[in-house]
Amino acid sequence: MAPSGAVRHATASTAGRAGAPGRAVTRTISDDPLGGTVRRTVLPSGLRVLTEAIPAMRSVSFGIWVAVGSRDETGPQAGAAHFLEHLLFKGTNKRNALEISSAIEAVGGETNAFTTKEYTCYYARVLDEDLPLAIDVMCDLVADSVLDPADVETERGVILEEIAMHDDEPGDEVHDLFARAVYGDHPLGRLISGTEETVTPMTRRQIQGFYRRRYTAPQIVIAAAGNLDHATVVRLVRQAVRGTPLDTDAAVPAPHRPATPGVRVKSATTLVEPKETEQAHVILGCPGIDRLDERRFALGVLNNVLGGGMSSRLFQEIREQRGLAYSVYSYASQYADSGLYAVYAGCAPGKVDEVLQLTRAELARVAADGLTEAEVARGKGMSKGSFVLGLEDTGSRMSRLAKGELLYGDLMPVDDLLTRVDAVTVEDVNSLAADLLSRPMSLAVVGPFGENDFSA
Amino acid sequence: MAPSGAVRHATASTAGRAGAPGRAVTRTISDDPLGGTVRRTVLPSGLRVLTEAIPAMRSVSFGIWVAVGSRDETGPQAGAAHFLEHLLFKGTNKRNALEISSAIEAVGGETNAFTTKEYTCYYARVLDEDLPLAIDVMCDLVADSVLDPADVETERGVILEEIAMHDDEPGDEVHDLFARAVYGDHPLGRLISGTEETVTPMTRRQIQGFYRRRYTAPQIVIAAAGNLDHATVVRLVRQAVRGTPLDTDAAVPAPHRPATPGVRVKSATTLVEPKETEQAHVILGCPGIDRLDERRFALGVLNNVLGGGMSSRLFQEIREQRGLAYSVYSYASQYADSGLYAVYAGCAPGKVDEVLQLTRAELARVAADGLTEAEVARGKGMSKGSFVLGLEDTGSRMSRLAKGELLYGDLMPVDDLLTRVDAVTVEDVNSLAADLLSRPMSLAVVGPFGENDFSA
Repeated sequence: MAPSGAVRHATASTAGRAGAPGRAVTRTISDDPLGGTVRRTVLPSGLRVLTEAIPAMRSVSFGIWVAVGSRDETGPQAGAAHFLEHLLFKGTNKRNALEISSAIEAVGGETNAFTTKEYTCYYARVLDEDLPLAIDVMCDLVADSVLDPADVETERGVILEEIAMHDDEPGDEVHDLFARAVYGDHPLGRLISGTEETVTPMTRRQIQGFYRRRYTAPQIVIAAAGNLDHATVVRLVRQAVRGTPLDTDAAVPAPHRPATPGVRVKSATTLVEPKETEQAHVILGCPGIDRLDERRFALGVLNNVLGGGMSSRLFQEIREQRGLAYSVYSYASQYADSGLYAVYAGCAPGKVDEVLQLTRAELARVAADGLTEAEVARGKGMSKGSFVLGLEDTGSRMSRLAKGELLYGDLMPVDDLLTRVDAVTVEDVNSLAADLLSRPMSLAVVGPFGENDFSA
Repeated sequence: MAPSGAVRHATASTAGRAGAPGRAVTRTISDDPLGGTVRRTVLPSGLRVLTEAIPAMRSVSFGIWVAVGSRDETGPQAGAAHFLEHLLFKGTNKRNALEISSAIEAVGGETNAFTTKEYTCYYARVLDEDLPLAIDVMCDLVADSVLDPADVETERGVILEEIAMHDDEPGDEVHDLFARAVYGDHPLGRLISGTEETVTPMTRRQIQGFYRRRYTAPQIVIAAAGNLDHATVVRLVRQAVRGTPLDTDAAVPAPHRPATPGVRVKSATTLVEPKETEQAHVILGCPGIDRLDERRFALGVLNNVLGGGMSSRLFQEIREQRGLAYSVYSYASQYADSGLYAVYAGCAPGKVDEVLQLTRAELARVAADGLTEAEVARGKGMSKGSFVLGLEDTGSRMSRLAKGELLYGDLMPVDDLLTRVDAVTVEDVNSLAADLLSRPMSLAVVGPFGENDFSA
């Protein structure tokens, strides 16, 4: 008997009993005026399924999100989460690698995956009529991969090439160097991919252990957005994981990643990666705020005005007024218990001192004097407009559901989020700026320099 | 008197006379079952305005496309089209650079531009309610830029940094090297950005001449897609260009770019850019087909199967089976009168010979034996599905309108395009493969090699 009757649309919590054991609990979270209806079901295994039904779309984005990333690795395991992500596409008990990719691509769909420091995501985007196929393939590869020893060896070669490719991109590399400057040996300071030194000796057994310990139903959120029916998605997911290690009972979802007390950050550390590049790639920044910090809305506004776009102070000062860089911007990274705030610039090696001086001066000016009322109003407009514009594709809506559940413990309705941005005051922004931008700054540089060129 | 009455919605051609002189001619092109209603208006100046109204969307993408690119430059002008594209954001008679970018960004919109070998595009994406603002700003910057001499100097620095940044990205650089291998000194073989040698001495007078000669109303197509009203868009465009050089009369739209007879291509040329990179970046390829070639649908199918995705032959052979590369794919570039067909791979320098041998063998196998019926069916599914999936955002719909008008001389309805793909036969694909893939191949390599290492 199919469990399709077990899960019902409802505005209050409902539960049903069906062919599969245990209770699936469904509730409707919001009827977002800008989007569709969001529903959430918790399966007996603790696996969560969230969907947003948007009938006007032709596609569906479907993602499987696992609450594990590179920060969950020990030092010698560095790169295991990412290695595993690659291997899951190599074959299951039902499909080989070609069958996995051709199933999705034959209908014009796309599938891929990515690993971050705190989570891993596997996704597909297909036409609505092909959603059952996408669910079957994606659940199969995440739940029931074989990790064939021969594939481990082949994929090791691919990952070493990925690492080498990254080493040829100094504008990317400098971001990793900056994380190391701030976090040092802490897992947040390590490369997501691991290094040649950790990937080369990594064994199938290590990766397999990581897979079985970490990819459990309570740690997984499945999210889908587009032209779909929630009950059908839930039914197809249950069907696809039946008989796999995700088909358990009597478990509850894991809470969102807890803040581990005492992420140590270093202050005012300088790291230089000497490299014969045409441009110098520079990041200047400091520890920021964590993901749930109430000041995150103020930080978004501050960042927009300081270096978040073409109209920002840093872009105007360094690019528009002086022509010193093609690319210059500020950004914030947020983790469960920590964060970064930084400015990137790519410029001629001979201009690094000038660019750094201008950047430090601008940061000091904003820390001391704050932003104007007009700037804060513009920064709030940017936050709200770009948030709403960002909700127009099924992929970003799917991500929003999963991140809300996995990283924030709840989905903030669109209207609430806009209200929170509206509530940001000039004082909120300026007191955050005074705190954040007066912290001792760390520096990372990739370019034609010696290791001690910036130690003064 | 506002010219709003001049342009009416209609399924047949209509014309009206209003405050502005001349007649605007509007027609409805298609009622695409997958999208919205497309309408096209030709203004008295020869400027064309195409829109697609999609009421379900919250945003509008608005683009101004000019039929001029780097191939329209003489040698000493190399980079002029791109330099001009940068300068147009620096200020008009009404707005300075900050006013341009902050107008769009304050409402959370985004704006940018890009230059290709055959056209230049300026675009913005905003919430529907902000479309009047976007039209006013984007038309102002394209029609009425001042090209201030001080800004020319500042922006020269920015462009030189952009060129330097590109030089630090060997995976991008190899594509330019390959174009030079095939096209040599022909304008299609040159860098879109120009080089340090051409950009450094370029004068404001040269750029200004380029602007006035090339940015004329008959060469420009304006396209918008999203929640909009065609007549309103046309009215706002007319209002925004009034009194500028685009406000002329009695001109007709330029035909799409004519094929210039005799684009010379070189065959079997090898170019190596010695560079101390971790990976070797390699392109192997040959002259392909032009944009209007009837075989383009068969080429799409062939490319999908040969190297267009994770299920493709080259990905399976080189990455999945042997782990030799992280990135390997084939692609086709098409111009008005010429094209390229090529395979890219990034791999360890010591593996280049093996990757090249495997690639050549696969190309020869497909040239000789063709693809199977199942592969062609899969390739057709990929073409159709990815085309439909690609129509779900306003940006790609806006681009489709503009490219149809500017590059193909007409917009092919979605249904017709799907029918054309469906009509591709195994014989079509295999006869194209036999022709294309047996051509003498050129080779471009960026990596730790000597200039003559691949001359054997």
